[in-house]
Amino acid sequence: MLYHLLGRLEDLHILFNLFNYITVRAAGAMGTSLLLLLLLGRPVIAWLKRRGIVDVPAGEAVPTGDAAEPKANMGGAVIVSVTVFATLLWAELANAYTLSALAVMLWMGALGFLDDYLKVVKRNRKGLAERYKWAGSLAVGVALGLFLVMAGPDSGVGPTTTNLPLFDEWQLVFTLPAFLIWVTIVLNGATHAVNMTDGLDGLAPGLAAIATGAFGVFAYVIGRVDTSAYLGLFYLPGSGELTVFAAAITGACLGFLWYNAQPASVIMGDTGSLALGGALGAMALLLKAELLLLFVGGVFAAEAASVIVQRRYFRYTRRRYGEGRRVLRCAPIHHHFQMAGWKNEQVVVRFWIVGVLCAMVGFATLKIR
Amino acid sequence: MLYHLLGRLEDLHILFNLFNYITVRAAGAMGTSLLLLLLLGRPVIAWLKRRGIVDVPAGEAVPTGDAAEPKANMGGAVIVSVTVFATLLWAELANAYTLSALAVMLWMGALGFLDDYLKVVKRNRKGLAERYKWAGSLAVGVALGLFLVMAGPDSGVGPTTTNLPLFDEWQLVFTLPAFLIWVTIVLNGATHAVNMTDGLDGLAPGLAAIATGAFGVFAYVIGRVDTSAYLGLFYLPGSGELTVFAAAITGACLGFLWYNAQPASVIMGDTGSLALGGALGAMALLLKAELLLLFVGGVFAAEAASVIVQRRYFRYTRRRYGEGRRVLRCAPIHHHFQMAGWKNEQVVVRFWIVGVLCAMVGFATLKIR
Repeated sequence: MLYHLLGRLEDLHILFNLFNYITVRAAGAMGTSLLLLLLLGRPVIAWLKRRGIVDVPAGEAVPTGDAAEPKANMGGAVIVSVTVFATLLWAELANAYTLSALAVMLWMGALGFLDDYLKVVKRNRKGLAERYKWAGSLAVGVALGLFLVMAGPDSGVGPTTTNLPLFDEWQLVFTLPAFLIWVTIVLNGATHAVNMTDGLDGLAPGLAAIATGAFGVFAYVIGRVDTSAYLGLFYLPGSGELTVFAAAITGACLGFLWYNAQPASVIMGDTGSLALGGALGAMALLLKAELLLLFVGGVFAAEAASVIVQRRYFRYTRRRYGEGRRVLRCAPIHHHFQMAGWKNEQVVVRFWIVGVLCAMVGFATLKIR
Repeated sequence: MLYHLLGRLEDLHILFNLFNYITVRAAGAMGTSLLLLLLLGRPVIAWLKRRGIVDVPAGEAVPTGDAAEPKANMGGAVIVSVTVFATLLWAELANAYTLSALAVMLWMGALGFLDDYLKVVKRNRKGLAERYKWAGSLAVGVALGLFLVMAGPDSGVGPTTTNLPLFDEWQLVFTLPAFLIWVTIVLNGATHAVNMTDGLDGLAPGLAAIATGAFGVFAYVIGRVDTSAYLGLFYLPGSGELTVFAAAITGACLGFLWYNAQPASVIMGDTGSLALGGALGAMALLLKAELLLLFVGGVFAAEAASVIVQRRYFRYTRRRYGEGRRVLRCAPIHHHFQMAGWKNEQVVVRFWIVGVLCAMVGFATLKIR
């Protein structure tokens, strides 16, 4: 909004010209969401606790922290609100990238919110019925896919073509049905991965801050003629606005971490993890960097993979040998390290460090092509 | 080294050309020091503990963590070694920026090492005598100052001129004696600030990783004709090599954090905090961004300021009212928040968040001029 209102005043005073820069607006968005979350955090947490919207640890296998104090739940709603506000304030609004990323984040956040609401407020153990979850996940995938094909931003290479990391001569080109399935898989893969990761105080918001920070830089590079050409990537005009969106999320995640750092007084719930996963997945799709997300969000991917492998292997060995065997002591993988004797804080900080390393490896795959 | 060896082979294969890029070499340096520290950490910590080189908490006012397990001391020696190795491996060696930053870091690290050695190994309570500390600090300040004036990199604006944040029409121009004092103050201010900050598991290495990361980006911007002109800063040819140096430190700090995260099995000691402070101060001086360091290293500055204010105010009120009064419950300021009821992990993570915010504010002062 400030871009539209103040950026045009550049003839009035040179300072207004600042609002035309993506870097300035990204910093503004990050600062806005971070400070807003710091301000809102305390009263919102108190309000949630008063309303009894607290985490009900359902007999977890591994203690996830200081059990004494109940944690407010559904804190993700603040992350989403603050991100939307900061993005609307600082980003270019008539931009297909901004709007579709925001829409996906809101949709996924709403799905998570419904699930949380039924579980926590309505005390309905199962939450949202599986079929509605599936319907919601499918709907957003097909909707984003169709939007990209029919009204998406013009990339010059066709909406169903995507980049491959490491190989710059090869591209992935989808047929329309395959593309719709692809979009659905990427979005839901990302949301599930963040959801699985969100099991230790501070873990998911810290990793999300790192991944969105990296994607913010990436969107900036892709959105400039010079830098995208330099790296041999598709130049996507206008995609730089996703830098503002990503920075808003980074700020919100850091702000949330203030209250979510161990011992947490609030958790994000599915509201937060689905929204963050949806935002990451949407950015990856919009920037034609789905496979980059596998690297940059490497810890999320590993968390999701650990659950799948553990479950598959257990079933397979049960069928094959009559007894189920495990690859890890416990899945998702952060529980494995807890059981190996790492303290919760160590697991969290170490996973963050691996997250930074993953983001670096992601960038390296862009240069080394 | 790789730059000199492999970068010249670009005619042989296009891939060798990668070694000519600062970004690639910075990523390489960061990856090298991070992985090397992860590899070396465990055996070095075991060795230090076997030799009895452990932290002796001297009846601290506030518990600094899990007191049960003794922590290995002087872990900073690994940070310095790994940084030096990664810098020599990836940076341009015939570069005045790289070499003088390395020299200051090594010198300050050596001062800290001597102090640690006397305290921890020789069980000499006082450590290095004050007069030697002063002599060492003065020597490095005067040496760097004279080097910059007589043989420093050519910046086109004279070695004793420096940038001011926020004001791009004004510059600070020193006379030679004033410049030598200035260099000494900046270097020692930075080392003391990091030293004061290093009182909670994970706090100093995390903040140092953030600050060196920010300075790495800054050095890159300053070292390019286009970006430095864009921001109206002095263009310092060759200063981009400090990006490689800074990235090496960032990687080393993240790697150290792996073992230093609460509950820490190692602490960096004065060896580490003086070396890191020296490196930050040297980078600020070399990049003519001394005042930027006040913003980017805002948490370090606040920690140092809290000690000074607390002490001064106590002395003043004791003289004035007959009883010493305090501004904070305890200084340095991280102890204040511990006493206010924050858990150690909360203090650390929250200070990191403030550190990120400080780095952002620092960058903002560059753009808004």
